[in-house]
Amino acid sequence: MFDRFFEEYQIGETWTSRARTITESDLVLFSAFSGDWYPLHTDKEWAAQSVFGQRIAHGMLVLSVGTGLTRMDPGVIVAFYGIDSVRFTSPTFIGDTLHVELEIFDKVDKGKAGLVTVKSRLCKQTGEVAVASTLRVLVHKSESTDTPTTAPLATP
Amino acid sequence: MFDRFFEEYQIGETWTSRARTITESDLVLFSAFSGDWYPLHTDKEWAAQSVFGQRIAHGMLVLSVGTGLTRMDPGVIVAFYGIDSVRFTSPTFIGDTLHVELEIFDKVDKGKAGLVTVKSRLCKQTGEVAVASTLRVLVHKSESTDTPTTAPLATP
Amino acid sequence: MFDRFFEEYQIGETWTSRARTITESDLVLFSAFSGDWYPLHTDKEWAAQSVFGQRIAHGMLVLSVGTGLTRMDPGVIVAFYGIDSVRFTSPTFIGDTLHVELEIFDKVDKGKAGLVTVKSRLCKQTGEVAVASTLRVLVHKSESTDTPTTAPLATP
Amino acid sequence: MFDRFFEEYQIGETWTSRARTITESDLVLFSAFSGDWYPLHTDKEWAAQSVFGQRIAHGMLVLSVGTGLTRMDPGVIVAFYGIDSVRFTSPTFIGDTLHVELEIFDKVDKGKAGLVTVKSRLCKQTGEVAVASTLRVLVHKSESTDTPTTAPLATP
Amino acid sequence: MFDRFFEEYQIGETWTSRARTITESDLVLFSAFSGDWYPLHTDKEWAAQSVFGQRIAHGMLVLSVGTGLTRMDPGVIVAFYGIDSVRFTSPTFIGDTLHVELEIFDKVDKGKAGLVTVKSRLCKQTGEVAVASTLRVLVHKSESTDTPTTAPLATP
Amino acid sequence: MFDRFFEEYQIGETWTSRARTITESDLVLFSAFSGDWYPLHTDKEWAAQSVFGQRIAHGMLVLSVGTGLTRMDPGVIVAFYGIDSVRFTSPTFIGDTLHVELEIFDKVDKGKAGLVTVKSRLCKQTGEVAVASTLRVLVHKSESTDTPTTAPLATP
Repeated sequence: MFDRFFEEYQIGETWTSRARTITESDLVLFSAFSGDWYPLHTDKEWAAQSVFGQRIAHGMLVLSVGTGLTRMDPGVIVAFYGIDSVRFTSPTFIGDTLHVELEIFDKVDKGKAGLVTVKSRLCKQTGEVAVASTLRVLVHKSESTDTPTTAPLATP
Repeated sequence: MFDRFFEEYQIGETWTSRARTITESDLVLFSAFSGDWYPLHTDKEWAAQSVFGQRIAHGMLVLSVGTGLTRMDPGVIVAFYGIDSVRFTSPTFIGDTLHVELEIFDKVDKGKAGLVTVKSRLCKQTGEVAVASTLRVLVHKSESTDTPTTAPLATP
Repeated sequence: MFDRFFEEYQIGETWTSRARTITESDLVLFSAFSGDWYPLHTDKEWAAQSVFGQRIAHGMLVLSVGTGLTRMDPGVIVAFYGIDSVRFTSPTFIGDTLHVELEIFDKVDKGKAGLVTVKSRLCKQTGEVAVASTLRVLVHKSESTDTPTTAPLATP
Repeated sequence: MFDRFFEEYQIGETWTSRARTITESDLVLFSAFSGDWYPLHTDKEWAAQSVFGQRIAHGMLVLSVGTGLTRMDPGVIVAFYGIDSVRFTSPTFIGDTLHVELEIFDKVDKGKAGLVTVKSRLCKQTGEVAVASTLRVLVHKSESTDTPTTAPLATP
Repeated sequence: MFDRFFEEYQIGETWTSRARTITESDLVLFSAFSGDWYPLHTDKEWAAQSVFGQRIAHGMLVLSVGTGLTRMDPGVIVAFYGIDSVRFTSPTFIGDTLHVELEIFDKVDKGKAGLVTVKSRLCKQTGEVAVASTLRVLVHKSESTDTPTTAPLATP
Repeated sequence: MFDRFFEEYQIGETWTSRARTITESDLVLFSAFSGDWYPLHTDKEWAAQSVFGQRIAHGMLVLSVGTGLTRMDPGVIVAFYGIDSVRFTSPTFIGDTLHVELEIFDKVDKGKAGLVTVKSRLCKQTGEVAVASTLRVLVHKSESTDTPTTAPLATP
């Protein structure tokens, strides 16, 4: 998706990624990396007693996988400005296969760069949305690409 | 922080976590897990030409580390409802040491459970804020803890 | 467990951890990290011919998981002095869920710090003990906590 | 070392392994796998204030690496019976290179198999001992090798 | 590169990938995954005595990284047929940054699919070639893409 | 296999390794490390529609595992010269168990070292060959072992 300069995005455009199956190994690897061993993700017995009846993936695991599924060409992105309205809408179970659906929602000229607002949905093989969020990404304008990353980060 | 039932949280309370140094190994591991090999995180030569002058950690890496630094006792959390207003405010470099500062911002009784809104800041050893965000977490009320996880997830 | 100063431990006190399911992924990750690819842990066909009839977790994997399940607050522990009488008493299979049970067995004042002896048992969801051992840990006394780690390591 | 049947070991025999450098990446990987993020291993700032002046490797990391450095031929070992007198005698820093020195200390005929007691020392490039311990391993006798693993595990 | 059907490749076409810095962490991770702990890759002291004067990356690590740097669109590749003439021509040190240069060398119509022969060079930031090889990949023809993977693998 | 000096190899000699089961975790780990997330290896739904009917291991994963299964004694190998005629002859599925069969095919005296050509086959528990290749390895002669690695790498 992030394969073009600011001028080239059209509001309403959509893009769909390849997919990736979330395995038991992914739950272990993400627990290990993040240090979040909450039993709903890592204790089979405990999770069996929960409302889900089984282990579910960490919300942040799903968001992280989403960034890897999104195409980002070097030299296009200035900075990852922020994320809004992240909602974990349905659980991701071991064996679910996720892909990303993006839609250009808004674009604002910021002078040397442009702020692109994208609606992102991580969807399962069933069509259900696992996580919905709104990404805000600063992208280069066509005339400003001599330096790979030039803009300051967001102010909180 | 998430070590108590809904009734016990006080608006304005704060909590500070232990810290973790972000290493070159963390950047490699997160690139590998997420599949996000954007050169600003993984190509030393490219990053040296960027405005940062060096590789920086993925925003989602920093957010993920934050969840592992936060204390979450089994049986307290109903569901991770969502995140709002994530802003990447300063870059995390290799060798920076991050900790989490949380503040209870709001609490709303939702009947069988309660929605706690927490301002979260991931801070560096210098005091700078790397990422600021607002977490929304459903927590159990003291009378409802017989089932570990009982509430539905958020609707987007 | 290691959340208090030397004076506060009572001989006979017990503590139980959260649990973690040992997955096939854990066996692969520990083989990889340690470099111990003994076929009883990594070769499904070979293990099927063994007395266990299937792959079992490395003894050291189980011990290592035990340290992560144990609560250790920064500023309490001076040094991990040693371990005695480690006995691998029943095999941990893929899918078993382990927790730690600790009991304060002895405490000896060593002047500036105190030596706490703890009986540790890594137990399965069935109640069986997977590994039993005796840990010896030097912990701070309440008046000596200004420096995080102050005592020399053990002499063999 | 564990490349022969019970009858072939001589008390007093010694064996030296290849070596492996312990990197910052190893500390991150072991923290992640074990879940032990104690700041002495993972927080550069905190460790700088400790008596060691820097991060040190987890004791269990060093023990685990030791098992991978030890040669264990399939079909020789019946079971890893236990470990005694583990003493962490000097810290392992990032960049230290460890090898294993083993010495056959005792052997006892147990009927269908034999119990071999081995003194193990994990040594640094400087010659210092990082960890000393006593391993107890059940090994096959030459006539009993038709089944890969035949003996029960230890009773605690 | 593998983003088009058989008919669309032109002999002599070239393609250059993004780059990735090979870190100490990569050497540890690949040693762990592959089980190849040869001291030239993993023992800093031993490697310092070698003709290279330091640790070097595994040849297979470099080849593996090359596959990840190459763009492969789903639905284009039928099968990875084989590799010829792999030559490790200069060592990859910790800190070197690698990219892939591909050149279409030959294409042969195989009926339902086509065999594309590609000269691949993994190059360092200095321009030196780390590994040269010849890849043989079966790719779909434009009329045959309804099934994602349809051809048998190579016969040796 | 690479446990002797050049003079000691006999053309026609064979050697068989221990075996390792390829797990779902291995596919995830290798996708992550290499960056090759081609859906035939990582998307369960996509792979189910392929001619294989399920996910298969990366060819380079299998080759990499082969190097770890091969015994290589420090001080024997001068350099990994190259690989020829790699052919991926049958798919490796999750749960397959691989071992290496090597045969000394040729040896050429190169003055200070010798070039040993080895036919390598990675075989499954069924006896099928997963990958066949020809390895070219420079090994020390018995009189030249004072320096661990002395010869230049191959010229392409």
